[in-house]
Amino acid sequence: MDDAVVARLTGIVGAQNLLSGDAVPEDYARDEALTCEPRKAAAVAKPASAREVSALLAIAAEHCLPVTARGSGSGLSGAARPREDGLLISFERMNSVLEVDVANQVAVVQPGVTLAELDQKTAAAGLAYTVYPGELSASVGGNVGTNAGGMRAVKYGVTRNNVLGLEAVLPTGEIIRTGGKTSKISSGYDLTQLIIGSEGTLAVVTEVTVKLYPRLKHSSTLLAPFGDLDQVMAAVPEIIASGLTPNILEYIDNLTMAAITHTEKLSLGISDELRDATQAYLVVGLENRDGDRLEGDLLRAAELLSNLGASDVFVLDGGSARKLVEAREKAFWTAKAAGADDVIDVVVPRSEMPGFLARARKLAAAAEAGAVGCGHAGDGNVHLAIFCKDPEKRNKLLRDIFFAGIAMGGAISGEHGIGQAKKNHFLALEDPAKVALLRRIKQAFDPKGILNPDVLLGAS
Amino acid sequence: MDDAVVARLTGIVGAQNLLSGDAVPEDYARDEALTCEPRKAAAVAKPASAREVSALLAIAAEHCLPVTARGSGSGLSGAARPREDGLLISFERMNSVLEVDVANQVAVVQPGVTLAELDQKTAAAGLAYTVYPGELSASVGGNVGTNAGGMRAVKYGVTRNNVLGLEAVLPTGEIIRTGGKTSKISSGYDLTQLIIGSEGTLAVVTEVTVKLYPRLKHSSTLLAPFGDLDQVMAAVPEIIASGLTPNILEYIDNLTMAAITHTEKLSLGISDELRDATQAYLVVGLENRDGDRLEGDLLRAAELLSNLGASDVFVLDGGSARKLVEAREKAFWTAKAAGADDVIDVVVPRSEMPGFLARARKLAAAAEAGAVGCGHAGDGNVHLAIFCKDPEKRNKLLRDIFFAGIAMGGAISGEHGIGQAKKNHFLALEDPAKVALLRRIKQAFDPKGILNPDVLLGAS
Repeated sequence: MDDAVVARLTGIVGAQNLLSGDAVPEDYARDEALTCEPRKAAAVAKPASAREVSALLAIAAEHCLPVTARGSGSGLSGAARPREDGLLISFERMNSVLEVDVANQVAVVQPGVTLAELDQKTAAAGLAYTVYPGELSASVGGNVGTNAGGMRAVKYGVTRNNVLGLEAVLPTGEIIRTGGKTSKISSGYDLTQLIIGSEGTLAVVTEVTVKLYPRLKHSSTLLAPFGDLDQVMAAVPEIIASGLTPNILEYIDNLTMAAITHTEKLSLGISDELRDATQAYLVVGLENRDGDRLEGDLLRAAELLSNLGASDVFVLDGGSARKLVEAREKAFWTAKAAGADDVIDVVVPRSEMPGFLARARKLAAAAEAGAVGCGHAGDGNVHLAIFCKDPEKRNKLLRDIFFAGIAMGGAISGEHGIGQAKKNHFLALEDPAKVALLRRIKQAFDPKGILNPDVLLGAS
Repeated sequence: MDDAVVARLTGIVGAQNLLSGDAVPEDYARDEALTCEPRKAAAVAKPASAREVSALLAIAAEHCLPVTARGSGSGLSGAARPREDGLLISFERMNSVLEVDVANQVAVVQPGVTLAELDQKTAAAGLAYTVYPGELSASVGGNVGTNAGGMRAVKYGVTRNNVLGLEAVLPTGEIIRTGGKTSKISSGYDLTQLIIGSEGTLAVVTEVTVKLYPRLKHSSTLLAPFGDLDQVMAAVPEIIASGLTPNILEYIDNLTMAAITHTEKLSLGISDELRDATQAYLVVGLENRDGDRLEGDLLRAAELLSNLGASDVFVLDGGSARKLVEAREKAFWTAKAAGADDVIDVVVPRSEMPGFLARARKLAAAAEAGAVGCGHAGDGNVHLAIFCKDPEKRNKLLRDIFFAGIAMGGAISGEHGIGQAKKNHFLALEDPAKVALLRRIKQAFDPKGILNPDVLLGAS
């Protein structure tokens, strides 16, 4: 990057908030995608306000510099991996909860705020931001970029369903506000929804208004081992239809359960015999504002699970439940530690999960690869760790698995996003008419193509 | 319209499904917007499939014919009012519920299906499509166009929150599918959400996949008169925060209540004395899958309402409750019958409702106009019937009221949409940078500008 440009960028954020050349740390070169090689940006800027972001983007537009926004870098798609000739905007200084508004049940936050911090601030008001994508060090801005989901989505929805408004800077430098502290608006195209999940390619988000819910006091977790994976999958629609409204409805296959209990040194009180006879587990979380109602729901859920073929039903005590949920949330790290070559999160209609899993395993077996996992059963969001060293074979296997998911009415990613990691598959498998339309929308926001040009739609 | 063009259009849908010239009935010249004069299209086509819609749009694009899609014509913004030189596409023949999918809790419907029909079909499966915008003769396609809301939105959200996927025809003739039978997707920009609420300006929807919920067996309605409107407004956030999750939370001012009870010959058992001391009413609907839990919630809600200043709390019997809810849903017709000159539905943050109402009434008084109403209190969506005969004065009053709502963090319309009726206000009050962006998005979908050119963004 030209020294003069670096000087202008420095003029906006100050010398200590602009790193360039060799001063750019390795940490900013990647996110957690397993298949994207680190790549250092030419410069890293740490703005303190939307105005500074706007000024940075104006310079970037002038010089056609590629710009990548970065929250905590916990993404799994490579959407925060910058270009070597580009500018990385890190939101580490814009990390405040600006307001917890109890009357409207919303919080207004800066994009760099972590979920952990937001959880703490909302708890103090008896409220909760209910999107928990597992990694609590993740930033709200990153979650908006990828439309993050997580375990509670089965009850509360994903990021898209919990963000009411944004402040964002367009790549043309204008600062716009979309939505607000209201849950309904019919006044023009919904830019909030369009920017959510756009992986930093349409605008740079500088403020987020999120919906909060009353934090329910009573919660409990059931663990149900099943001898047969198909039975688990068949049980899911029944539990949804029961009206028990679980806030967690996860399946964990036996290999993944073995790995996470081992890694987390977790004892769930399941006998060796039962464990050996189990093909998969269902984890059912229930919550209520009233303790007696929760007890009633637990009994009903346990009975339902037994009727649906569970070998047993364990009510986990608070400590074990928390540990299991945390361990499940760390499944990515377990997979990574176990040497997984990729992680994917195809989403299919709930009813298609058994067929999809059978197909994915068959494809993996034929490729002499491994595909094990767990997933958001209530959402049809199947997380698979792929073990397949050979890049070409793996590429073909992924293409076949994604194709199978799409053919069943699903999509490549339920919550991780496409980013750089899955872009080639997306562009190969998506309807060309839609890709062309997405490109025209991209053009409407970003005529010079400076925002995350290698992500989602980029040619490279 | 050129005879040759009419002949080509006829060739697609058949002679009995293409009306032109004098054969176009008056019914197709308007929707229910009070301020848009009827305007007959040059031709009306009644296609039977997405392919036919695509073929119609291809001809329209070739000849730059303005195209307006029409469901039941119950909209309140003029978005279904066609152009005189244009083609109206009526979805009256594409009116089937294609599938009620119990395992995935979704229904797949054609856009012309009415809410009444969908309600009946889902009831048979123990499920419900929970968007009830009042007018059950409304079509699902029309609801998608305007992002319809209604009373249950306080619990279940608006159309946007309950549509998972679309089939739509682009003005360039391509048929695309967006989303699907899954509640989460992070694989490219969310075209489903972009098309919802776009009032027929981006694409023509030919199929809708909607989310269903278990139909809860037990429900009840509380009616709470308050001596003071501000108390009603102050009570709303408390009820939301209670975790009782009402499925209805409406306020009705005393004049509106008098009008709807009179029109519907509705007796609610309220003494004349209490009625005279009442400034506004709160209607609280509760529902539960369990009768005992509902009883418990009713007691708790009644206690809460008393503590919040209600003069009394009536548990309405089933018949009265249904009648009151229906009467409230017909408030538009009551206002129309009473000679209202316009109806508006500004949305503001819940906490701003008292301030907004006070401001709106003050503005109305200063203009020697009337502004009375009711509204979705839980959503901050204030419905006002405006009584002001003089068009210029009324225009200024509306501008001032909309400006006040926007200044309080709200928007012109919560659920009716902008259409043709509120377009001039929208274009005058919205951020020019956003309007320019919306126009570029419109251009990305509709380069020739054939879809509903007079709606939302059009220059006229």
